[in-house]
Amino acid sequence: MVPPSGIHEHISDLLLSKEGTDVTFKVGGEEFAAHRCVLAARSAVFKAELFGPTKDGKMESVIQIKDMESKVFRALPSFIYTDLLPEMEMNTMQEGKAQETLWLQHLLAAADRYDLQRLKALCEERLCEHINVSSVTTILIQAEQLNCCGLKGVCFEFLKTTTNLKEITAADGLDDITITCPSLLKELIAKLVS
Amino acid sequence: MVPPSGIHEHISDLLLSKEGTDVTFKVGGEEFAAHRCVLAARSAVFKAELFGPTKDGKMESVIQIKDMESKVFRALPSFIYTDLLPEMEMNTMQEGKAQETLWLQHLLAAADRYDLQRLKALCEERLCEHINVSSVTTILIQAEQLNCCGLKGVCFEFLKTTTNLKEITAADGLDDITITCPSLLKELIAKLVS
Repeated sequence: MVPPSGIHEHISDLLLSKEGTDVTFKVGGEEFAAHRCVLAARSAVFKAELFGPTKDGKMESVIQIKDMESKVFRALPSFIYTDLLPEMEMNTMQEGKAQETLWLQHLLAAADRYDLQRLKALCEERLCEHINVSSVTTILIQAEQLNCCGLKGVCFEFLKTTTNLKEITAADGLDDITITCPSLLKELIAKLVS
Repeated sequence: MVPPSGIHEHISDLLLSKEGTDVTFKVGGEEFAAHRCVLAARSAVFKAELFGPTKDGKMESVIQIKDMESKVFRALPSFIYTDLLPEMEMNTMQEGKAQETLWLQHLLAAADRYDLQRLKALCEERLCEHINVSSVTTILIQAEQLNCCGLKGVCFEFLKTTTNLKEITAADGLDDITITCPSLLKELIAKLVS
Protein backbone atom coordinates (compact mmCIF):
# COMPACT_ATOMS: atom_id res chain seq x y z
CA MET A 1 0.00 0.00 0.00
CA VAL A 2 1.46 3.35 -1.08
CA PRO A 3 0.70 6.07 1.50
CA PRO A 4 -1.00 9.20 0.10
CA SER A 5 1.06 12.26 -0.85
CA GLY A 6 2.46 13.95 2.26
CA ILE A 7 3.70 17.28 0.87
CA HIS A 8 0.67 19.18 2.14
CA GLU A 9 1.04 17.83 5.67
CA HIS A 10 4.84 18.27 5.69
CA ILE A 11 4.68 21.93 4.62
CA SER A 12 1.94 22.53 7.17
CA ASP A 13 4.16 20.95 9.88
CA LEU A 14 6.93 23.37 8.88
CA LEU A 15 4.74 26.28 10.00
CA LEU A 16 4.38 24.75 13.46
CA SER A 17 7.97 23.53 13.91
CA LYS A 18 9.53 26.78 12.59
CA GLU A 19 12.57 24.63 11.67
CA GLY A 20 14.97 26.61 9.50
CA THR A 21 13.01 29.87 9.31
CA ASP A 22 15.13 32.54 7.64
CA VAL A 23 13.02 35.70 7.67
CA THR A 24 11.07 37.52 10.39
CA PHE A 25 8.19 39.95 9.88
CA LYS A 26 7.53 42.57 12.54
CA VAL A 27 3.90 43.62 12.56
CA GLY A 28 2.37 45.80 15.28
CA GLY A 29 4.73 44.64 18.02
CA GLU A 30 4.46 40.96 17.06
CA GLU A 31 7.02 38.83 15.21
CA PHE A 32 6.32 36.12 12.66
CA ALA A 33 9.13 33.83 11.49
CA ALA A 34 8.83 32.13 8.12
CA HIS A 35 10.73 30.39 5.32
CA ARG A 36 11.58 32.65 2.39
CA CYS A 37 11.33 29.92 -0.21
CA VAL A 38 7.86 28.81 0.93
CA LEU A 39 6.50 32.38 0.89
CA ALA A 40 8.11 32.98 -2.52
CA ALA A 41 6.78 29.71 -3.93
CA ARG A 42 3.25 30.63 -2.90
CA SER A 43 3.11 34.37 -3.63
CA ALA A 44 4.67 36.28 -6.51
CA VAL A 45 4.57 39.42 -4.34
CA PHE A 46 6.51 37.80 -1.50
CA LYS A 47 8.90 36.40 -4.15
CA ALA A 48 9.62 39.91 -5.46
CA GLU A 49 9.95 41.33 -1.94
CA LEU A 50 12.16 38.54 -0.63
CA PHE A 51 14.32 37.71 -3.65
CA GLY A 52 14.07 40.85 -5.73
CA PRO A 53 16.86 43.45 -5.94
CA THR A 54 17.52 45.37 -2.70
CA LYS A 55 19.06 48.80 -2.11
CA ASP A 56 22.35 47.52 -0.70
CA GLY A 57 22.35 44.11 -2.38
CA LYS A 58 21.84 42.37 0.96
CA MET A 59 18.82 40.28 1.93
CA GLU A 60 16.88 41.73 4.85
CA SER A 61 16.32 39.15 7.56
CA VAL A 62 13.79 41.33 9.42
CA ILE A 63 10.96 43.00 7.52
CA GLN A 64 8.67 45.65 9.02
CA ILE A 65 5.02 45.61 7.96
CA LYS A 66 3.45 48.91 8.91
CA ASP A 67 0.09 49.07 7.18
CA MET A 68 -1.54 45.87 8.38
CA GLU A 69 -2.92 44.68 11.71
CA SER A 70 -1.01 41.78 13.27
CA LYS A 71 -4.18 39.69 13.57
CA VAL A 72 -4.63 39.98 9.81
CA PHE A 73 -0.97 39.35 8.94
CA ARG A 74 -0.92 36.30 11.24
CA ALA A 75 -3.47 34.65 8.96
CA LEU A 76 -1.22 34.91 5.89
CA PRO A 77 1.45 32.34 6.85
CA SER A 78 -1.36 30.15 8.15
CA PHE A 79 -2.93 30.14 4.66
CA ILE A 80 0.39 29.99 2.82
CA TYR A 81 1.51 26.81 4.61
CA THR A 82 -1.87 25.03 4.65
CA ASP A 83 -4.02 26.40 1.78
CA LEU A 84 -6.94 26.59 4.23
CA LEU A 85 -8.97 29.68 5.14
CA PRO A 86 -7.68 30.75 8.57
CA GLU A 87 -10.31 31.31 11.25
CA MET A 88 -10.46 34.63 13.10
CA GLU A 89 -8.90 34.43 16.54
CA MET A 90 -11.47 35.52 19.11
CA ASN A 91 -10.04 37.55 21.98
CA THR A 92 -13.34 37.74 23.84
CA MET A 93 -16.62 35.88 23.51
CA GLN A 94 -18.26 39.21 22.73
CA GLU A 95 -16.66 39.38 19.29
CA GLY A 96 -19.41 38.62 16.87
CA LYS A 97 -20.40 38.40 13.24
CA ALA A 98 -19.71 42.08 12.50
CA GLN A 99 -16.09 41.80 13.73
CA GLU A 100 -15.62 38.67 11.65
CA THR A 101 -17.00 40.46 8.59
CA LEU A 102 -14.48 43.25 9.08
CA TRP A 103 -11.65 40.77 9.62
CA LEU A 104 -12.59 38.86 6.45
CA GLN A 105 -12.59 42.14 4.52
CA HIS A 106 -9.11 42.96 5.81
CA LEU A 107 -7.97 39.44 4.96
CA LEU A 108 -9.41 39.76 1.45
CA ALA A 109 -7.44 42.98 1.01
CA ALA A 110 -4.26 41.27 2.28
CA ALA A 111 -4.84 38.31 -0.05
CA ASP A 112 -5.17 40.74 -2.95
CA ARG A 113 -2.03 42.63 -1.93
CA TYR A 114 0.07 39.43 -1.80
CA ASP A 115 -1.58 37.92 -4.90
CA LEU A 116 -2.95 34.89 -3.05
CA GLN A 117 -5.76 34.03 -5.45
CA ARG A 118 -7.05 30.99 -3.60
CA LEU A 119 -7.21 32.89 -0.29
CA LYS A 120 -9.02 35.70 -2.09
CA ALA A 121 -11.60 33.22 -3.41
CA LEU A 122 -11.98 31.61 0.05
CA CYS A 123 -12.57 35.04 1.63
CA GLU A 124 -15.10 35.92 -1.08
CA GLU A 125 -16.94 32.64 -0.50
CA ARG A 126 -17.09 33.20 3.26
CA LEU A 127 -18.06 36.87 2.89
CA CYS A 128 -21.14 35.81 0.92
CA GLU A 129 -22.44 34.43 4.24
CA HIS A 130 -21.84 37.84 5.85
CA ILE A 131 -23.98 39.91 3.52
CA ASN A 132 -26.80 41.71 5.34
CA VAL A 133 -28.40 45.16 5.26
CA SER A 134 -25.58 46.61 7.40
CA SER A 135 -22.65 45.07 5.54
CA VAL A 136 -23.69 44.77 1.90
CA THR A 137 -22.58 48.21 0.71
CA THR A 138 -19.04 48.08 2.15
CA ILE A 139 -18.67 44.53 0.87
CA LEU A 140 -19.90 45.59 -2.58
CA ILE A 141 -17.46 48.53 -2.71
CA GLN A 142 -14.55 46.26 -1.79
CA ALA A 143 -15.67 43.59 -4.29
CA GLU A 144 -15.67 46.27 -7.00
CA GLN A 145 -12.26 47.66 -5.98
CA LEU A 146 -10.58 44.24 -5.79
CA ASN A 147 -12.28 42.83 -8.88
CA CYS A 148 -14.16 40.07 -7.02
CA CYS A 149 -16.87 39.32 -9.60
CA GLY A 150 -18.54 36.47 -7.71
CA LEU A 151 -18.91 38.42 -4.48
CA LYS A 152 -20.11 41.49 -6.37
CA GLY A 153 -22.81 39.40 -8.05
CA VAL A 154 -24.06 38.05 -4.70
CA CYS A 155 -24.20 41.61 -3.28
CA PHE A 156 -26.30 42.74 -6.25
CA GLU A 157 -28.63 39.75 -5.81
CA PHE A 158 -29.13 40.82 -2.18
CA LEU A 159 -29.76 44.45 -3.15
CA LYS A 160 -32.28 43.46 -5.84
CA THR A 161 -34.62 42.11 -3.14
CA THR A 162 -37.08 44.97 -2.56
CA THR A 163 -37.36 44.57 1.22
CA ASN A 164 -33.56 44.69 1.60
CA LEU A 165 -33.16 47.72 -0.63
CA LYS A 166 -36.04 49.56 1.12
CA GLU A 167 -34.39 49.01 4.52
CA ILE A 168 -31.00 50.17 3.23
CA THR A 169 -32.25 53.31 1.51
CA ALA A 170 -34.38 54.19 4.56
CA ALA A 171 -31.15 54.19 6.66
CA ASP A 172 -29.18 56.19 4.04
CA GLY A 173 -27.18 53.02 3.45
CA LEU A 174 -26.32 53.93 -0.17
CA ASP A 175 -24.48 57.14 0.79
CA ASP A 176 -21.05 55.48 0.90
CA ILE A 177 -21.47 53.95 -2.55
CA THR A 178 -22.64 57.28 -3.93
CA ILE A 179 -19.43 58.94 -2.76
CA THR A 180 -16.95 56.13 -3.39
CA CYS A 181 -18.20 54.29 -6.41
CA PRO A 182 -21.27 55.82 -8.07
CA SER A 183 -20.94 53.56 -11.12
CA LEU A 184 -22.19 50.74 -8.88
CA LEU A 185 -25.51 52.59 -8.48
CA LYS A 186 -25.84 52.70 -12.27
CA GLU A 187 -25.20 48.94 -12.40
CA LEU A 188 -27.76 48.38 -9.63
CA ILE A 189 -30.43 50.33 -11.48
CA ALA A 190 -29.75 48.33 -14.65
CA LYS A 191 -30.19 45.12 -12.63
CA LEU A 192 -33.38 46.39 -10.98
CA VAL A 193 -35.06 47.05 -14.32
CA SER A 194 -33.83 43.92 -16.06
CA MET B 1 -15.28 29.27 -7.65
CA VAL B 2 -12.41 28.54 -5.25
CA PRO B 3 -9.38 27.19 -7.12
CA PRO B 4 -8.00 23.87 -5.82
CA SER B 5 -5.11 23.80 -3.36
CA GLY B 6 -1.89 24.89 -5.05
CA ILE B 7 0.75 23.89 -2.47
CA HIS B 8 1.71 20.75 -4.38
CA GLU B 9 2.23 22.62 -7.65
CA HIS B 10 4.01 25.55 -5.97
CA ILE B 11 6.52 23.30 -4.18
CA SER B 12 7.06 21.38 -7.40
CA ASP B 13 7.72 24.69 -9.23
CA LEU B 14 10.34 25.52 -6.59
CA LEU B 15 12.39 22.53 -7.75
CA LEU B 16 12.44 23.87 -11.29
CA SER B 17 12.97 27.57 -10.50
CA LYS B 18 15.69 26.89 -7.87
CA GLU B 19 14.67 30.25 -6.34
CA GLY B 20 16.30 30.70 -2.93
CA THR B 21 18.17 27.40 -2.76
CA ASP B 22 20.49 27.37 0.25
CA VAL B 23 22.31 24.05 0.13
CA THR B 24 24.22 22.21 -2.60
CA PHE B 25 24.94 18.49 -2.75
CA LYS B 26 27.97 17.29 -4.68
CA VAL B 27 27.49 13.76 -5.96
CA GLY B 28 29.86 12.10 -8.42
CA GLY B 29 30.93 15.32 -10.13
CA GLU B 30 27.38 16.71 -10.32
CA GLU B 31 25.81 19.42 -8.17
CA PHE B 32 22.25 19.57 -6.92
CA ALA B 33 20.92 22.74 -5.31
CA ALA B 34 17.97 22.50 -2.92
CA HIS B 35 16.08 24.24 -0.13
CA ARG B 36 17.04 23.06 3.36
CA CYS B 37 13.60 23.59 4.85
CA VAL B 38 11.86 21.56 2.12
CA LEU B 39 14.28 18.63 2.47
CA ALA B 40 13.97 18.79 6.27
CA ALA B 41 10.16 18.98 6.13
CA ARG B 42 10.04 15.85 3.97
CA SER B 43 12.78 13.67 5.48
CA ALA B 44 13.73 13.27 9.13
CA VAL B 45 17.19 12.16 7.99
CA PHE B 46 17.77 15.31 5.93
CA LYS B 47 16.42 17.31 8.88
CA ALA B 48 19.01 15.81 11.22
CA GLU B 49 21.79 16.25 8.64
CA LEU B 50 20.86 19.82 7.73
CA PHE B 51 19.72 21.27 11.05
CA GLY B 52 21.35 18.95 13.57
CA PRO B 53 24.46 19.89 15.55
CA THR B 54 27.65 20.29 13.49
CA LYS B 55 31.32 19.98 14.46
CA ASP B 56 32.09 23.69 14.30
CA GLY B 57 28.56 25.00 14.93
CA LYS B 58 28.34 26.30 11.37
CA MET B 59 25.89 25.10 8.72
CA GLU B 60 27.57 23.51 5.72
CA SER B 61 26.36 25.02 2.48
CA VAL B 62 27.98 22.30 0.35
CA ILE B 63 27.52 18.64 1.23
CA GLN B 64 29.47 15.80 -0.37
CA ILE B 65 27.63 12.53 -0.98
CA LYS B 66 30.17 9.81 -1.64
CA ASP B 67 28.32 6.53 -1.49
CA MET B 68 25.57 7.09 -4.04
CA GLU B 69 25.47 7.39 -7.83
CA SER B 70 24.44 10.81 -9.12
CA LYS B 71 21.64 9.31 -11.23
CA VAL B 72 20.14 7.85 -8.06
CA PHE B 73 20.62 10.99 -5.93
CA ARG B 74 19.09 13.13 -8.68
CA ALA B 75 15.81 11.28 -8.18
CA LEU B 76 15.58 12.23 -4.49
CA PRO B 77 14.86 15.98 -4.86
CA SER B 78 12.54 15.07 -7.72
CA PHE B 79 10.48 12.90 -5.34
CA ILE B 80 10.82 15.26 -2.38
CA TYR B 81 9.36 18.24 -4.28
CA THR B 82 6.65 16.33 -6.18
CA ASP B 83 5.78 13.15 -4.22
CA LEU B 84 5.87 11.26 -7.54
CA LEU B 85 8.04 8.25 -8.39
CA PRO B 86 10.84 9.65 -10.59
CA GLU B 87 11.44 7.86 -13.87
CA MET B 88 14.93 6.55 -14.73
CA GLU B 89 16.79 8.80 -17.14
CA MET B 90 17.82 6.75 -20.17
CA ASN B 91 21.23 7.64 -21.58
CA THR B 92 20.94 5.28 -24.52
CA MET B 93 18.08 3.41 -26.11
CA GLN B 94 19.89 0.19 -25.22
CA GLU B 95 19.15 0.58 -21.53
CA GLY B 96 16.47 -1.93 -20.75
CA LYS B 97 14.38 -3.53 -18.07
CA ALA B 98 17.38 -5.01 -16.19
CA GLN B 99 19.00 -1.55 -15.83
CA GLU B 100 15.73 -0.13 -14.61
CA THR B 101 15.41 -2.94 -12.06
CA LEU B 102 18.86 -2.12 -10.73
CA TRP B 103 18.10 1.60 -10.64
CA LEU B 104 14.84 0.99 -8.75
CA GLN B 105 16.74 -1.15 -6.26
CA HIS B 106 19.27 1.65 -5.70
CA LEU B 107 16.42 4.14 -5.37
CA LEU B 108 14.68 1.89 -2.84
CA ALA B 109 17.90 1.80 -0.80
CA ALA B 110 18.20 5.61 -1.01
CA ALA B 111 14.55 6.03 0.04
CA ASP B 112 15.23 3.79 3.03
CA ARG B 113 18.39 5.72 3.93
CA TYR B 114 16.58 9.08 3.89
CA ASP B 115 13.42 7.70 5.52
CA LEU B 116 11.17 8.55 2.57
CA GLN B 117 8.40 6.05 3.28
CA ARG B 118 6.18 6.97 0.34
CA LEU B 119 9.08 6.72 -2.12
CA LYS B 120 9.96 3.35 -0.60
CA ALA B 121 6.40 2.13 -1.16
CA LEU B 122 6.38 3.50 -4.74
CA CYS B 123 9.66 1.69 -5.50
CA GLU B 124 8.31 -1.54 -3.99
CA GLU B 125 5.16 -1.26 -6.08
CA ARG B 126 7.13 -0.71 -9.29
CA LEU B 127 9.66 -3.45 -8.46
CA CYS B 128 6.79 -5.96 -8.29
CA GLU B 129 6.56 -5.52 -12.08
CA HIS B 130 10.28 -6.33 -12.38
CA ILE B 131 10.22 -9.73 -10.73
CA ASN B 132 11.43 -12.50 -13.04
CA VAL B 133 13.67 -15.56 -12.80
CA SER B 134 16.82 -13.42 -13.09
CA SER B 135 15.85 -10.69 -10.62
CA VAL B 136 13.69 -12.34 -7.97
CA THR B 137 16.46 -13.43 -5.61
CA THR B 138 18.28 -10.08 -5.40
CA ILE B 139 14.91 -8.31 -5.01
CA LEU B 140 13.91 -10.75 -2.25
CA ILE B 141 17.19 -10.24 -0.39
CA GLN B 142 16.77 -6.46 -0.53
CA ALA B 143 13.12 -6.68 0.50
CA GLU B 144 14.20 -8.70 3.54
CA GLN B 145 17.04 -6.33 4.44
CA LEU B 146 14.91 -3.16 4.12
CA ASN B 147 11.82 -4.65 5.74
CA CYS B 148 9.62 -4.36 2.63
CA CYS B 149 6.90 -6.88 3.55
CA GLY B 150 4.70 -6.36 0.48
CA LEU B 151 7.55 -6.82 -1.99
CA LYS B 152 8.84 -9.84 -0.09
CA GLY B 153 5.39 -11.45 -0.29
CA VAL B 154 5.23 -10.95 -4.06
CA CYS B 155 8.71 -12.50 -4.46
CA PHE B 156 7.62 -15.57 -2.49
CA GLU B 157 4.47 -15.90 -4.59
CA PHE B 158 6.68 -15.90 -7.70
CA LEU B 159 9.05 -18.50 -6.20
CA LYS B 160 6.17 -20.77 -5.19
CA THR B 161 5.32 -21.36 -8.85
CA THR B 162 7.00 -24.67 -9.66
CA THR B 163 8.15 -23.72 -13.19
CA ASN B 164 9.82 -20.54 -11.87
CA LEU B 165 11.54 -22.32 -9.02
CA LYS B 166 12.74 -25.14 -11.31
CA GLU B 167 14.31 -22.65 -13.70
CA ILE B 168 15.99 -20.75 -10.86
CA THR B 169 17.42 -23.81 -9.11
CA ALA B 170 18.64 -25.21 -12.45
CA ALA B 171 20.71 -22.02 -12.91
CA ASP B 172 22.02 -22.05 -9.29
CA GLY B 173 19.87 -18.98 -8.71
CA LEU B 174 19.44 -19.63 -5.00
CA ASP B 175 23.18 -19.46 -4.25
CA ASP B 176 23.13 -15.76 -3.30
CA ILE B 177 20.27 -16.23 -0.85
CA THR B 178 22.02 -19.23 0.67
CA ILE B 179 25.07 -17.09 1.44
CA THR B 180 23.40 -13.79 2.31
CA CYS B 181 20.15 -14.67 3.97
CA PRO B 182 19.59 -18.42 4.51
CA SER B 183 16.56 -17.80 6.73
CA LEU B 184 14.69 -16.84 3.54
CA LEU B 185 15.16 -20.41 2.27
CA LYS B 186 13.54 -21.72 5.45
CA GLU B 187 10.61 -19.34 4.88
CA LEU B 188 10.35 -20.47 1.27
CA ILE B 189 10.21 -24.14 2.24
CA ALA B 190 7.46 -23.37 4.78
CA LYS B 191 5.49 -21.62 2.04
CA LEU B 192 6.04 -24.48 -0.44
CA VAL B 193 4.58 -27.07 1.94
CA SER B 194 1.72 -24.90 3.20
